[in-house]
Amino acid sequence: MKNLLISHGGAPTAVINASLAGVIIELRKEGFDGKIFAARFGSKGLYNEDFIDLTNVTDKELDLLKKTSGTAIGSSRFPLGDKEYEKIVDNLVKNNIGYLLFTGGNGSMDGLGKIYKHAKARNVDVACVGIPKTIDNDIAVTDHAPGFPSAARYMAATIRDCWQDVRGLPIHCVIIEAMGRNAGWLTASSALAREETNDAPQLLYFPEVAFDEEEFLKDVKRCYDTYGGFIVVASEGIHDKNGTPICTSKESTSRSSYFGEVAVYLSELVTNKLGIKCRGEKPGIIARSCSYEQSPIDRKEAIMVGKAAAKAVLKEKNGVMVGIKRISNKPYRSKTFLVPIEEVMLTEAKMPLKYIAKNNHDITPEFVDWLKPLIGELPKGITFVNKK
Amino acid sequence: MKNLLISHGGAPTAVINASLAGVIIELRKEGFDGKIFAARFGSKGLYNEDFIDLTNVTDKELDLLKKTSGTAIGSSRFPLGDKEYEKIVDNLVKNNIGYLLFTGGNGSMDGLGKIYKHAKARNVDVACVGIPKTIDNDIAVTDHAPGFPSAARYMAATIRDCWQDVRGLPIHCVIIEAMGRNAGWLTASSALAREETNDAPQLLYFPEVAFDEEEFLKDVKRCYDTYGGFIVVASEGIHDKNGTPICTSKESTSRSSYFGEVAVYLSELVTNKLGIKCRGEKPGIIARSCSYEQSPIDRKEAIMVGKAAAKAVLKEKNGVMVGIKRISNKPYRSKTFLVPIEEVMLTEAKMPLKYIAKNNHDITPEFVDWLKPLIGELPKGITFVNKK
Repeated sequence: MKNLLISHGGAPTAVINASLAGVIIELRKEGFDGKIFAARFGSKGLYNEDFIDLTNVTDKELDLLKKTSGTAIGSSRFPLGDKEYEKIVDNLVKNNIGYLLFTGGNGSMDGLGKIYKHAKARNVDVACVGIPKTIDNDIAVTDHAPGFPSAARYMAATIRDCWQDVRGLPIHCVIIEAMGRNAGWLTASSALAREETNDAPQLLYFPEVAFDEEEFLKDVKRCYDTYGGFIVVASEGIHDKNGTPICTSKESTSRSSYFGEVAVYLSELVTNKLGIKCRGEKPGIIARSCSYEQSPIDRKEAIMVGKAAAKAVLKEKNGVMVGIKRISNKPYRSKTFLVPIEEVMLTEAKMPLKYIAKNNHDITPEFVDWLKPLIGELPKGITFVNKK
Repeated sequence: MKNLLISHGGAPTAVINASLAGVIIELRKEGFDGKIFAARFGSKGLYNEDFIDLTNVTDKELDLLKKTSGTAIGSSRFPLGDKEYEKIVDNLVKNNIGYLLFTGGNGSMDGLGKIYKHAKARNVDVACVGIPKTIDNDIAVTDHAPGFPSAARYMAATIRDCWQDVRGLPIHCVIIEAMGRNAGWLTASSALAREETNDAPQLLYFPEVAFDEEEFLKDVKRCYDTYGGFIVVASEGIHDKNGTPICTSKESTSRSSYFGEVAVYLSELVTNKLGIKCRGEKPGIIARSCSYEQSPIDRKEAIMVGKAAAKAVLKEKNGVMVGIKRISNKPYRSKTFLVPIEEVMLTEAKMPLKYIAKNNHDITPEFVDWLKPLIGELPKGITFVNKK
């Protein structure tokens, strides 16, 4: 009997562990009797032959996996080249791995595709199946990827709560920085916070459209005159019309691997140019690791894609990733399908421009329709400040 | 029959509305048949005679008040002087207000005390009772104040989740900025995130002790060598041994009303001086407005102090604030008592040094014992990364 190995790649999400739980549940259901190994810290563990034996995880552990954010088996950004791929194939052979699962985004699918090719070239028989995962929602072909709906829910729920704070004490402009350096999905998601038309966020700034400082200041001034207190959500990746990130000149971008401090930059701009009190907040990794804002649908689908991947890999499906297809929106229903990995490898799905409003700083009703079922219901709030 | 007026002061919390619900519930129970007014936007509404009539709020609205963060009636930082206090007393007389409740922190209790004195000097008969509220936990005399336990729970739950992220992908030092510019209660609270001794936060920096850059860098280097990825929590108010905030020289402090960007400053320091990848995150107002991390005990006590204030004011108690007294810790039980407002007015309760560990960057077991019952149980997580 061959063994199975699963590896996580890239940044964790709120539900990547739920997919792992789905894999194990399905393997047991199918009566899989090989070992279930996990690569400790992703590609690093693959390369170093450092595996965690998950064959005997308990039901209680499976239940905790469904709810725990982050990655329980570890991930890494360990760079892989031909030498490393060859060593990984050696390790697969050595450990009698017949089934290899990778949970990750574009980069991980690229890595899986390359292992698949290296194995094939050496006639090593290992079925390779990918499980999508991203908070940025930038994986091609699939309707969306697990991890994104929970991060989107976090943004919407957080802005809704912050609006209760800001509308009650309207003394400042609050700028909140959203993750997603090339794709504005999470920035856009914050708009689902609104219960009424004039609720926060009042302004949104996406990486898909060029940022214009003059326009921004005009918009902020207008919101200040209208609301007194209001919320702006800006992507960490906003840039000017030449593609230059808007805060490259700041000392903070000396951290080359991260983008600049957009919330700090914009809040200083507002205070210095307009004399308006402004705070900049940055949830950062809090947004992707928040377990209490797991979207129920996201958890369910994360388990579903894990199960589908286990089923596919046992059937010796090869060089494919599990995708999510939306069957209907009201009521929301989805199913899995298999995509050739080549269609996914390093292809980045940006947010379609049809989801960005003509004024460039809001979303369209189409986007609300698309996202709403994925994040689930948000708690309603109450206010009397506008009461006669 | 005289009417009642309630006003909110200072920054909102996750449970200030729960106290408002408590007030209304108790007034109805006592058969109060005057009008229940709220000052729209706090002292601004008091001064402008801008009141919201809450006499007929529904049970559904009361239920939503218990759960909604922020302030449903609004608050302000409107400055009050003798002229304003006289006008406010005029407005009380004009609207037949016999009962005045203020929910707020030290500043609000100071305001309430002054209204009380101005009214007394003019022989205006108005009973004045304060309801404590703060996220910083800096109100004197009371064991703690509603709002703080929920913000503390937010810090603990958030760091627990972030640790799942960072331990699984240990590629950076993550510095998280905590609110509380003069008191380290919220910074300290993040330590309740730990399930095991070596869990995050690995380092804590309080405003109660002088910050030493050299020591900080040494501690960070040591944690980096031990953990690879780890979490530092630093108060927005950390300062050097001369009392100078550690990032005054930054452009960001041009926003005079807010402290500098401590997380940005420290993360740049780590990257520039040690060459270690570092992210700085700042939940900011997200931490105080988060409704999904309302502590169950905090909500219960917020309602309890609201009820106690209504009961006291109807009994014509005057110039007092409701405090919380801890009766027992295991099981946790508390009750209300009345404190003369003079004992509270503008007196700031710092965190006792007994709660700070000798190394200056951790808390003591005593602090854990004190805080644990207030934040309630946190969800447990699971990890296999250290599994053999």
